[in-house]
Amino acid sequence: MFDRLAGCGATPGGGVERQCATAADGAARDVFEAALKSAGAETRTDVIGNQFGVFRLAGCEDAPLVMIGSHLDSQPKGGRFDGALGVAAAVCVGEALSATDDAGVTLAEALNAIGRHGTDRPPSLPACYLELHVEQGVSLETAGATIGVVTRNWGATKFDVVFQGEQAHTGPCPMPLRRDALLAASYLIVDARAIADRWPGVVHTSVGRLVVSPNSANVVPSETQLSLEIRSNDDGVLAQASALADQAIAKAAARANVTVAAVTRTERAIRTLPASVCDLVEDCSAAAGCKSLRLDTVAGHDAISLLGHCPTGLVFVPSVGGVAHNEGELTSKADVEAGFRVCLEAASRLCRSGGSPERALRLAREVAA
Amino acid sequence: MFDRLAGCGATPGGGVERQCATAADGAARDVFEAALKSAGAETRTDVIGNQFGVFRLAGCEDAPLVMIGSHLDSQPKGGRFDGALGVAAAVCVGEALSATDDAGVTLAEALNAIGRHGTDRPPSLPACYLELHVEQGVSLETAGATIGVVTRNWGATKFDVVFQGEQAHTGPCPMPLRRDALLAASYLIVDARAIADRWPGVVHTSVGRLVVSPNSANVVPSETQLSLEIRSNDDGVLAQASALADQAIAKAAARANVTVAAVTRTERAIRTLPASVCDLVEDCSAAAGCKSLRLDTVAGHDAISLLGHCPTGLVFVPSVGGVAHNEGELTSKADVEAGFRVCLEAASRLCRSGGSPERALRLAREVAA
Repeated sequence: MFDRLAGCGATPGGGVERQCATAADGAARDVFEAALKSAGAETRTDVIGNQFGVFRLAGCEDAPLVMIGSHLDSQPKGGRFDGALGVAAAVCVGEALSATDDAGVTLAEALNAIGRHGTDRPPSLPACYLELHVEQGVSLETAGATIGVVTRNWGATKFDVVFQGEQAHTGPCPMPLRRDALLAASYLIVDARAIADRWPGVVHTSVGRLVVSPNSANVVPSETQLSLEIRSNDDGVLAQASALADQAIAKAAARANVTVAAVTRTERAIRTLPASVCDLVEDCSAAAGCKSLRLDTVAGHDAISLLGHCPTGLVFVPSVGGVAHNEGELTSKADVEAGFRVCLEAASRLCRSGGSPERALRLAREVAA
Repeated sequence: MFDRLAGCGATPGGGVERQCATAADGAARDVFEAALKSAGAETRTDVIGNQFGVFRLAGCEDAPLVMIGSHLDSQPKGGRFDGALGVAAAVCVGEALSATDDAGVTLAEALNAIGRHGTDRPPSLPACYLELHVEQGVSLETAGATIGVVTRNWGATKFDVVFQGEQAHTGPCPMPLRRDALLAASYLIVDARAIADRWPGVVHTSVGRLVVSPNSANVVPSETQLSLEIRSNDDGVLAQASALADQAIAKAAARANVTVAAVTRTERAIRTLPASVCDLVEDCSAAAGCKSLRLDTVAGHDAISLLGHCPTGLVFVPSVGGVAHNEGELTSKADVEAGFRVCLEAASRLCRSGGSPERALRLAREVAA
């Protein structure tokens, strides 16, 4: 099934191009649904395109639900492991139905175009959620461990910034009169990198997206829209770095003689995952004969998004060289199999314990003792 | 006719959106052709879409040709005066037929789509070329003059630069390992501005166009393509500033740990326009009762592109506030009429002098004397 998914939107570079609600994503969703059906699951697609497969293992309708999942969509020219590895259910990581892409297409329109704008209600809130994902870093590889037990996520402040200047001719317009929105964006991007360099290893910053208008060689840009991220594993440092980013936005606008037309700021707190699920995964890893390592996740994952709703667990397997969001992403077959064995064991214990990670952990320890 | 052209691609902001070979450009070309035909001209469209109207005023086929022209296409959300004001023939300013836009569409394909991919041979080389254009600066307004007699153009070095980095996850990828092509572009944009600031009023620099790949908020950009311009009215300074730009490109790549995948460098020399045509325009301006001013053009114009082929003259009329490449561009009706009167008089004298500006000038002076 992994190989069939990797074939959906496969790129010549060995990766996948399967952004949400594109034709390639639709193909992967078809593969996923067919696999669920052939495995005997009841399938559901909800109003924002989430797909669920419900396996009824208990004899009653109101049994606690254990959910396992990850994402099917990819980065542009992304890797084939990222998300697809943990696939069992598509969990909401997207935006509201009113969100549009750069071409103004809403998610609802894009989902309709691939026939995945469903009407089903999602299943009930799970008693526990498990996710298998590739590490996207080098900690496991460095430690020689096969299984990562994620105990905490890095916090993040994400800024969407719009600078507004004024179109002018790049020739005759005197330099002091120019109101160059791209120059403002550039000042900010340079300053954002300097913020990371103040706290090596503790703060990560990036601007991954920048849209320039009108984007013509001999027109001074009148508008830029960019997405800036500040990430840290330290609450105090994250607050300081985010405040510096706020200042850098204002300073960049002032230096380039433009205005800050809009700033939206989204924060993701540093949070710890439930100790009971971590302990359970660690136990299952030991039972499978795998060396495990407790570690942070810098990236957000579905298991982090669901933290406020139910106990969640996040299991990492090694990424060769830490390569991520890149077609060259790779995880060895042996590591993939180890990750699946650990997840299978943890899910199996959870299902035999009414979905309670504490009970699943106790049960296993009793068996062991 | 000017108002009808302004209606082609008219924007709510009072400007026009009429980029080359779009539907709006096609509409303007139709207006232009219809106007030529109704005025009795023989019309031609050549293989790269240039349109010509030939008025046969002499009795013979091989009479010297006087050409008057400018451009019909506009900047994105540009002004309605820019180019359209001087329209009489579309003169080649474009790229080869193999050039493509950002969407990979060739000029030939785009011209075919609007039915303007002609096969006619252009008319013979003109004996003289005249162009009426808006100043796009404030020199005339400041001097209280109505007619600008352009004697020289600023030189320019134009760079198209491609930085190549490596896609990575903006979260876990350690900062020292990132190869961020957008960061490199930002260093260069900031340095390019600093180059202009070293020679105030003598050097203009801008990056008007920047394309980021893959342009996703949580992916470190792997490629940026940008267009950088350096302009100056001093040959020595232009050479120094261009050399600094070369260094800034290399330095930006090194700082961001990326490679310079491509640099193309196009140079436009500082050149003077023929004194005879300048004198003729000045004479005609005086005859029309207009105050004139000799000045440079910072922007390139068709009359500059044709300099190597025949004597050319470039006549400016004032731009209110110097606003250019912007929907708010404006030239007063009285100034437009003055510009037309001067051009009409100059063209009329040229036509009576076999197309020779020297003879046209002598003729007028003899009449005056």
